[in-house]
Amino acid sequence: MPGNSFGQLFKITTAGESHGGAIGVIVDGCPPGFALSEADIQIELDRRKPGEGSVAASARAESDTIHILSGVSDGVTIGTPILLLAYNQDARSEDYEKMKNVFRPGHADFTYEKKYGRRQWRGGGRGSARETLARVAAGAIAQKYLYEKLGIEFVSYVEQIGGIVSSADFNLVTRADIEKNILRCPDEISAGKMLALVEEVRRDKDSIGGIIRGVIRNVPIGLGEPVFDKLPADLGKAMLSINAVKGFEIGLGFNCAQMRGSEHNDEFVVDKKTGQTRPKTNNAGGTLGGISSGETIYFRVAFKPVSTIGKKQKTVTIDGEAVDLEATGRHDSCVLPRAVPIVDAMGALVIMDHYLRNKTQNI
Amino acid sequence: MPGNSFGQLFKITTAGESHGGAIGVIVDGCPPGFALSEADIQIELDRRKPGEGSVAASARAESDTIHILSGVSDGVTIGTPILLLAYNQDARSEDYEKMKNVFRPGHADFTYEKKYGRRQWRGGGRGSARETLARVAAGAIAQKYLYEKLGIEFVSYVEQIGGIVSSADFNLVTRADIEKNILRCPDEISAGKMLALVEEVRRDKDSIGGIIRGVIRNVPIGLGEPVFDKLPADLGKAMLSINAVKGFEIGLGFNCAQMRGSEHNDEFVVDKKTGQTRPKTNNAGGTLGGISSGETIYFRVAFKPVSTIGKKQKTVTIDGEAVDLEATGRHDSCVLPRAVPIVDAMGALVIMDHYLRNKTQNI
Amino acid sequence: MPGNSFGQLFKITTAGESHGGAIGVIVDGCPPGFALSEADIQIELDRRKPGEGSVAASARAESDTIHILSGVSDGVTIGTPILLLAYNQDARSEDYEKMKNVFRPGHADFTYEKKYGRRQWRGGGRGSARETLARVAAGAIAQKYLYEKLGIEFVSYVEQIGGIVSSADFNLVTRADIEKNILRCPDEISAGKMLALVEEVRRDKDSIGGIIRGVIRNVPIGLGEPVFDKLPADLGKAMLSINAVKGFEIGLGFNCAQMRGSEHNDEFVVDKKTGQTRPKTNNAGGTLGGISSGETIYFRVAFKPVSTIGKKQKTVTIDGEAVDLEATGRHDSCVLPRAVPIVDAMGALVIMDHYLRNKTQNI
Amino acid sequence: MPGNSFGQLFKITTAGESHGGAIGVIVDGCPPGFALSEADIQIELDRRKPGEGSVAASARAESDTIHILSGVSDGVTIGTPILLLAYNQDARSEDYEKMKNVFRPGHADFTYEKKYGRRQWRGGGRGSARETLARVAAGAIAQKYLYEKLGIEFVSYVEQIGGIVSSADFNLVTRADIEKNILRCPDEISAGKMLALVEEVRRDKDSIGGIIRGVIRNVPIGLGEPVFDKLPADLGKAMLSINAVKGFEIGLGFNCAQMRGSEHNDEFVVDKKTGQTRPKTNNAGGTLGGISSGETIYFRVAFKPVSTIGKKQKTVTIDGEAVDLEATGRHDSCVLPRAVPIVDAMGALVIMDHYLRNKTQNI
Repeated sequence: MPGNSFGQLFKITTAGESHGGAIGVIVDGCPPGFALSEADIQIELDRRKPGEGSVAASARAESDTIHILSGVSDGVTIGTPILLLAYNQDARSEDYEKMKNVFRPGHADFTYEKKYGRRQWRGGGRGSARETLARVAAGAIAQKYLYEKLGIEFVSYVEQIGGIVSSADFNLVTRADIEKNILRCPDEISAGKMLALVEEVRRDKDSIGGIIRGVIRNVPIGLGEPVFDKLPADLGKAMLSINAVKGFEIGLGFNCAQMRGSEHNDEFVVDKKTGQTRPKTNNAGGTLGGISSGETIYFRVAFKPVSTIGKKQKTVTIDGEAVDLEATGRHDSCVLPRAVPIVDAMGALVIMDHYLRNKTQNI
Repeated sequence: MPGNSFGQLFKITTAGESHGGAIGVIVDGCPPGFALSEADIQIELDRRKPGEGSVAASARAESDTIHILSGVSDGVTIGTPILLLAYNQDARSEDYEKMKNVFRPGHADFTYEKKYGRRQWRGGGRGSARETLARVAAGAIAQKYLYEKLGIEFVSYVEQIGGIVSSADFNLVTRADIEKNILRCPDEISAGKMLALVEEVRRDKDSIGGIIRGVIRNVPIGLGEPVFDKLPADLGKAMLSINAVKGFEIGLGFNCAQMRGSEHNDEFVVDKKTGQTRPKTNNAGGTLGGISSGETIYFRVAFKPVSTIGKKQKTVTIDGEAVDLEATGRHDSCVLPRAVPIVDAMGALVIMDHYLRNKTQNI
Repeated sequence: MPGNSFGQLFKITTAGESHGGAIGVIVDGCPPGFALSEADIQIELDRRKPGEGSVAASARAESDTIHILSGVSDGVTIGTPILLLAYNQDARSEDYEKMKNVFRPGHADFTYEKKYGRRQWRGGGRGSARETLARVAAGAIAQKYLYEKLGIEFVSYVEQIGGIVSSADFNLVTRADIEKNILRCPDEISAGKMLALVEEVRRDKDSIGGIIRGVIRNVPIGLGEPVFDKLPADLGKAMLSINAVKGFEIGLGFNCAQMRGSEHNDEFVVDKKTGQTRPKTNNAGGTLGGISSGETIYFRVAFKPVSTIGKKQKTVTIDGEAVDLEATGRHDSCVLPRAVPIVDAMGALVIMDHYLRNKTQNI
Repeated sequence: MPGNSFGQLFKITTAGESHGGAIGVIVDGCPPGFALSEADIQIELDRRKPGEGSVAASARAESDTIHILSGVSDGVTIGTPILLLAYNQDARSEDYEKMKNVFRPGHADFTYEKKYGRRQWRGGGRGSARETLARVAAGAIAQKYLYEKLGIEFVSYVEQIGGIVSSADFNLVTRADIEKNILRCPDEISAGKMLALVEEVRRDKDSIGGIIRGVIRNVPIGLGEPVFDKLPADLGKAMLSINAVKGFEIGLGFNCAQMRGSEHNDEFVVDKKTGQTRPKTNNAGGTLGGISSGETIYFRVAFKPVSTIGKKQKTVTIDGEAVDLEATGRHDSCVLPRAVPIVDAMGALVIMDHYLRNKTQNI
């Protein structure tokens, strides 16, 4: 059963391999009457693109220009499905020739081969992170809608690379802070150390993991559908569906294991300014019982190091022959900075879907 | 939009509040011709029941007897939907009278009230963990099927409570080891310490969090549907939909952040016994590119401490009046041991669904 | 893949065989804060029950008492799934003994046997029309909601049995007119003839087909989701999923084949009273481009004669032996009158779902 | 909630307006390892194209060239989603200028305007039959797969236009017979009369309705999912989702209303050649209890006359002003011949989906 759709009411369906004709996505369920241009989408895609800085290891020269082929007329959404497309241009299959018959350690090409009886060795096919272009494009629509209609902001950033941990306060970080450096780490001192580490790793022809802090502000109370489609469950699924993600935690996450209820529980108070009841602290991370509480949603997403590396590794061929592999081609040493817009996009897709879902029953 | 169904091909839909008439579940899509009795299901429900031991804080005297009302004839599934029901018997609404108009800190009753304009203050309604009875019942069917047809085993256990961490090796643990003590921690020494801690916490009228280690053995290669319904994504969603869960990680999880690709990648070798290619190590935790690799799937699930505690907490009423709350009623100080069968059940529902999903396209 | 759910946002999942423990349904997605009692549902179930009149052939003495086991508290829906149950009481398996190994001509037991490798010969299992009890119960909730909130009425009736065709004008018929006689045909003269025909058919130990006219009034403009979930498409599916239905047409239906566009097109005019633009005539049957136009929705549903008859028929056993079959047991000679509330129920489920669906994107 | 996806396991999602950039479709769930070229798809699209013959009224000069942009590698499907695209080339918006502010009688532009607050007056946007290009393209893949793997054939044809009814025997008709004339009516004498009628209608600047006979041969026993996703229910929905369709009947359809059970029931016999039990006759139209019986599936689909006509009609503008409308632009007088491949395509999508669905639970 296919797994290339995400969302129920703001539903995206994606297609496209790394080295095929194009990456495409159909966004179905977008409200009509909403201003939308290719530039609105391109801005997020450009954040995802391999950059010029030294951290941007994958030097594939794709313009990643997005085309809106339907669903928008005279600059406005019309309620019909939005088809977005970016053509693949700079696919260098020759880089992959030497890996054609080899299973890369840690890579999906082993399981694709076993599952489908074949795999697209050129570029990794659908297992390539190039697929996330479609997510970012669709997520840009959701981000724009949610910001304009509800003031919701998505401000994820790189919190950790290797052992270097940012000390930025997620409550204060702005998109501008994040975009100040190519690491997308708002703590400049940590960013400098991270850059040095990534460069060292690259020189070693190796790769390195890290953690992205996800932050979503101004989500209204009431989003999330018990008992299975709780907001943290759908956010978790969204993040764990991104390439290389191995962990997700919301609020205090794994640290909760060591806490007592009397410590962890957020007491309720009446906000003097608004007269509204709200939790005094936000240990819960913006949800209670799987439903948004009106507080900032924050979470962390753990990325493993990229599997394709230039360093020599032992592996076997499809025919079971032991070989040494030194991968060539354009591969990132650290995907974290480029994954920031993907985390924002997936967050926006979840919030948009749940915003519409809540309307069906409750508004 | 409703969120009370889980799974696509082995699909469950649950219903029932803590203090209503019954907890029910319809299991749709179960293959026909498979022996199934109420006893097969009761065995898992009994693992979930509040026990007699001191760790079992919630002394609600429910028999939780399961009834099969359809889908099984002459002891065998017939391919039609299976309706399972357990009647609610020992609901003591009076315990909740004092909390009728009060928002419990850390509890879902605040967000339910805001979302639905009401909440079932008796027992917490659908926000109560009593809802998980339906999951365990449905999961028992999946566990039985998967074990009998494919030899797949689910052997989750308590790995951590508060600061006490079990040193059991998840590769060796058996269901019998787990059931040896009421903590469901296979490391007896840690279990003893955990028990002491839980008793101390209870005396303090407080609660404590912890971590469950999930283990799934003998999953065939090829389960998981790129790009959104990857196996870790669906397992993560399953776990994060359980009450009180705040984190999920698979394989080395958050520890990956500090690793290099050359360390983390699992090299491929040819298994001398079987002649099959397989990873030499299993850092990945049993999946590659979101698809099962044939290795043991292991993950960790973080639980926050239970929110309803007897200790005095500050909060407000629905009318915004500041009050002190000392909850009465039957509440667990530590849900971890009772959550073990829930983790097994949710794991089994995911694997069963993906086993059927993989068949549709690939077998 | 299971097929026991209907609807997306007002979603029902049904279970239960003719001779199992119960017929059940979970209604998920019902808006909260809506008064609902068992009596509200029972009223529609009683319309579906085998009656005392001579037309009511199936004399099974079920009380069909509905129980609400969740989702309603203090007489009001609370936004959680509603579990409805009617226990099976008067199942006489002995009536079916003689048909245990015989394929009834025209009956589902042949295809169930081939599909699932087994079938519930007692009462026909899930192929029995007893399954429709769940639809009627769920539909009663939708009917009540739609009438109270939007004034929408469902007034289906028997338009034809055998060659006898009612001359009632569907624009004028009321629920009271329909319930005046046991045929549920508002044209009394035709009803009398139909009754005589059905009695003759019963004496012949035979059965007879017919046509139900479906009528839905006061549906707001805008329901229906292009391009696949058009309102006529979902109404058609709903009706064609009812046992014994072989045809569905909306508006002028098959008669359109002989018409010219200039005849069939409904001209638009401005309604003098309301100032609203609307079609002057309603040949289209209440939808344009698959979306409700604000006019009365009307359609026709064709039922084949019931397959189980007392008259001698030739058939074969499971072992391929030719035999004569004279069915015993309680079977209707004509299901049309009892199918009227089923048509109303399925219509209400479709309209309710599309009312909520339209809200997600457009309101 | 969006309605642009069809199917569960062989799932298509379509996009594209009449006068936008392209018509696109993503086909998700296609089994891997299946030879597929653009030519395989183009052959069905060419059947749908406005032809040169006099019956082909809509003279839009689109090449409708299909592009496969993903999911196929080295001529073979690889298990990933297949993205198909046909660019819009010959869109003449000026033809629609005069209808920009006018509601065409019988047309979807009234309901689109009311539902979405806007409509694409150029070419009818998503309400245009141009959308069906995507269905035919996706259906071509299903047809090829089903024929090659299972020998299933789709041989729909025009059975009636206006009052002229073909006398061809659907059991004998071949694809070659159908393609012999531009009417796609295998009875040459009727075809001649139909052609004359269509020409007369065109001269009158009018349009005419008709009926397509759907025929599907060699479907294995067991497809169809009780109780809601019965095969006739899903076929009916598929057909009723096609533009201009107003009725669907399977087997003897509406004629069943006048029949007795003893006439209508198909007796079972043992086939002397194969030793298999099967119905002696096929009044049921190839399904029993909603599940395929192994016999030929046949049905009829009623089409209303096209709503956009050159003949003068009274209507109103968006501002409620009464006007006379004489539509210009390229519109068919009779869509039946072009709708034949659409009926085949939708039939193939349903059968393919149910073939995969049956595998999940039963094979």
